[in-house]
Amino acid sequence: MFVYHGYTGKLASLLSSMNIEPGDRIKVVKGGEVFEGVLMPRYTIRSGEDILVIKLDNGYNVGVKIEEGSQISLLSKKPRVERRGRIGEAGGRRGEIVLLSTGGTIASKIDYETGAVVPALSTEEIIEWAPDLADIALFEAREVMSVFSEDITPEDWERLAREVYEEMNRGVAGVVIAHGTDMMSYSAAALAFAIRDKPVPIVFVGSQRSSDRPSSDSILNLKGAFITAAKAPLAESVVAMHASTSDEMIAVHRGVKVRKMHTSRRDAFQSINDKPIALVNPYTGEIKIVGRILRERDRGRTPILEGRFDNRVALVKAYPGVQPEIIDFLVDKGFHGIVIEGSGLGHIANRLIESIKRGVENGIPFVMTSQCLFGRVNLNVYSTGRRLLEAGVIPLEDMLPEVAYVKLSWVLANKSRDLSEVRKWMLTNLEGEITYRHTLDLFPRWPYE
Amino acid sequence: MFVYHGYTGKLASLLSSMNIEPGDRIKVVKGGEVFEGVLMPRYTIRSGEDILVIKLDNGYNVGVKIEEGSQISLLSKKPRVERRGRIGEAGGRRGEIVLLSTGGTIASKIDYETGAVVPALSTEEIIEWAPDLADIALFEAREVMSVFSEDITPEDWERLAREVYEEMNRGVAGVVIAHGTDMMSYSAAALAFAIRDKPVPIVFVGSQRSSDRPSSDSILNLKGAFITAAKAPLAESVVAMHASTSDEMIAVHRGVKVRKMHTSRRDAFQSINDKPIALVNPYTGEIKIVGRILRERDRGRTPILEGRFDNRVALVKAYPGVQPEIIDFLVDKGFHGIVIEGSGLGHIANRLIESIKRGVENGIPFVMTSQCLFGRVNLNVYSTGRRLLEAGVIPLEDMLPEVAYVKLSWVLANKSRDLSEVRKWMLTNLEGEITYRHTLDLFPRWPYE
Repeated sequence: MFVYHGYTGKLASLLSSMNIEPGDRIKVVKGGEVFEGVLMPRYTIRSGEDILVIKLDNGYNVGVKIEEGSQISLLSKKPRVERRGRIGEAGGRRGEIVLLSTGGTIASKIDYETGAVVPALSTEEIIEWAPDLADIALFEAREVMSVFSEDITPEDWERLAREVYEEMNRGVAGVVIAHGTDMMSYSAAALAFAIRDKPVPIVFVGSQRSSDRPSSDSILNLKGAFITAAKAPLAESVVAMHASTSDEMIAVHRGVKVRKMHTSRRDAFQSINDKPIALVNPYTGEIKIVGRILRERDRGRTPILEGRFDNRVALVKAYPGVQPEIIDFLVDKGFHGIVIEGSGLGHIANRLIESIKRGVENGIPFVMTSQCLFGRVNLNVYSTGRRLLEAGVIPLEDMLPEVAYVKLSWVLANKSRDLSEVRKWMLTNLEGEITYRHTLDLFPRWPYE
Repeated sequence: MFVYHGYTGKLASLLSSMNIEPGDRIKVVKGGEVFEGVLMPRYTIRSGEDILVIKLDNGYNVGVKIEEGSQISLLSKKPRVERRGRIGEAGGRRGEIVLLSTGGTIASKIDYETGAVVPALSTEEIIEWAPDLADIALFEAREVMSVFSEDITPEDWERLAREVYEEMNRGVAGVVIAHGTDMMSYSAAALAFAIRDKPVPIVFVGSQRSSDRPSSDSILNLKGAFITAAKAPLAESVVAMHASTSDEMIAVHRGVKVRKMHTSRRDAFQSINDKPIALVNPYTGEIKIVGRILRERDRGRTPILEGRFDNRVALVKAYPGVQPEIIDFLVDKGFHGIVIEGSGLGHIANRLIESIKRGVENGIPFVMTSQCLFGRVNLNVYSTGRRLLEAGVIPLEDMLPEVAYVKLSWVLANKSRDLSEVRKWMLTNLEGEITYRHTLDLFPRWPYE
């Protein structure tokens, strides 16, 4: 089957013979109707498909069924991207960054057959679609995997860590990782731990809206991420996403302190128990530091890869009536570590403590976080907490449950499975995952205030 | 063993013979030192204990070890609470409310031996300690259980629902439930569903600070709860807690839309995907409606008790690498329902879908919520969502994961275990647990904005 930018059959042959490519401006006359706009690639290849996708000037995409008698003409070729460069070559120039694509909405398109969004946009297509990214920095882009972020596994983090590590060794000024938003904060935390002594930033970026929707945040987020990767004076794993619903500012959040806090808003990502590190103006390129930089950019620093993750860690949320048999099951199955998303200051029902104790006696670390998300756990205030401490539970300060999960997986695979070592590493603040002092203004302001 | 307000041995005999009770002003002279203040009751009974607890005028409690030669004298008796009334008697007066105590910080005190806070304050002691509650409304108080809220179970909700139902049938103007804050929002949701056609409000109230700490929020929260129970024009299950860290206003949140969002702040409870219903000024008694009342107070309405809860519901949070064997285990163990706290718009790894499908085929309802907390799930946007829908997963709009857990437990026990019936009831908006339209201002404003 001849496939041409996702098109097949006669349509593929026709477009190819006319040298029409995605990005070119075309006109289709069909019956009495005229469709004029930019040709889009297809992202689901189906043989026999004869629908042409055109982005109209109003920003909407239409699928035009090409029939006998339909006329297609080329109005103008797409503008050429001239300023792309390659990285790491001899005498490599400053400001060169790499964009690694993993899948997700920033690289996804509507499947016009099912109406659902599927991850498919290739890196080349990203470049075609947002050529002005090259104004920010010379960059190279490639796809390292293509999965929805909800399918990301600890094994994927290992692969991603190796890719990023290699890029850093090649001397890039920064790495941008296009990632689905669902699990982006988990992956940002994973990369924070997986590469020690980072010389340059790792910038995760995604999109809350499909890139062919007029309200898409893809391009501005990517611009913010590119600016951060190329120029921000930090060397941490961060998330760059819309700071508010208006297209004014991109917030740069510490990867171990950020969480997706809304299912659909463009400003869904927010720092918890910390402030964002910076705000980036995607139009001017200005970077305003509003938080704390914990590791400064230093391209001379040699990164260390500690990129393994243990996939036998479970996260258990406390709820009224939570069944001790769930803990028993995880212990019996030989899980390597368990994160409790406790209630309040870090509690779970007392009737589970015997099961937890048995797990600890079997060498399984139990760490405690809070489903409140904001604030710090404290097992010294109430007697339940004290009993949990006695059972060997490790309280993780103000660490997010999701970050505790990632870090425990990382500690178990790279450091030790010895309980006292696990305790030591979990409580060692490696990447700012613990904020020791909270100011009152870290809690957001609520609608009615 | 003779126990007198928690005191034992010689001390108990001495206090009793001198007619000294907690709340009385006393003076202790011991060696060269003089301690003057209010006698506090003991909350951990230990024989042989000879420590007297005195609340000093600076608000701090001291434990004074009474030795040979120590002198205790009564300075003044505590003020008498005269305005308490009983409820439901013939010709019952308007404004009479009942305070049901379940345990938790609002009824807890420091155990001076271990230094930890234990739940122990009796209802009588609450009244002694905050006599001006009687200024708000005639009230009766009693303890229906004494557990930490992290130990609350669905069985406890059944008991609590019966108690509240009986109070409503006796014609109270409102029910206040003193509850530990850890699981308070779960219980508030449980009572919302357990009593249909409520005639008057059920007001949950707790304290983020132990009642013997100077910064305690106990009394103001209780006042706000009493005002709400006695006078607010609503008949829903709500949570009344500090609206901000300043002692100015108590917020009244819908029980099915509230969540403890901070481990320690006094304004930890916040409405998610909804506004609070009201703000109450605990000093003036003024009630300002700032949100929507979904059921108005009507003491003539006859409540219906549907107070059972199924304790075989589990909540599973999606995380990268979440193990399908956890779902398999719950299905094999014959759990009756599973709430998924998915990622983003309501996803979980595709590799779990076969396990979920098997569960649904075995008649187990799976419902989908989002760990983002804010926003609405939508399984029609991405292909993972569509596959979850095909597997039979029920998407729960903008319902909180915790509320979905409570409601599923309630539906299974009171309505049906038939999948299509469960779907119908889960998606029927009984208590405002679903907000169909979100305004942009429902998302909080973040520190750096």
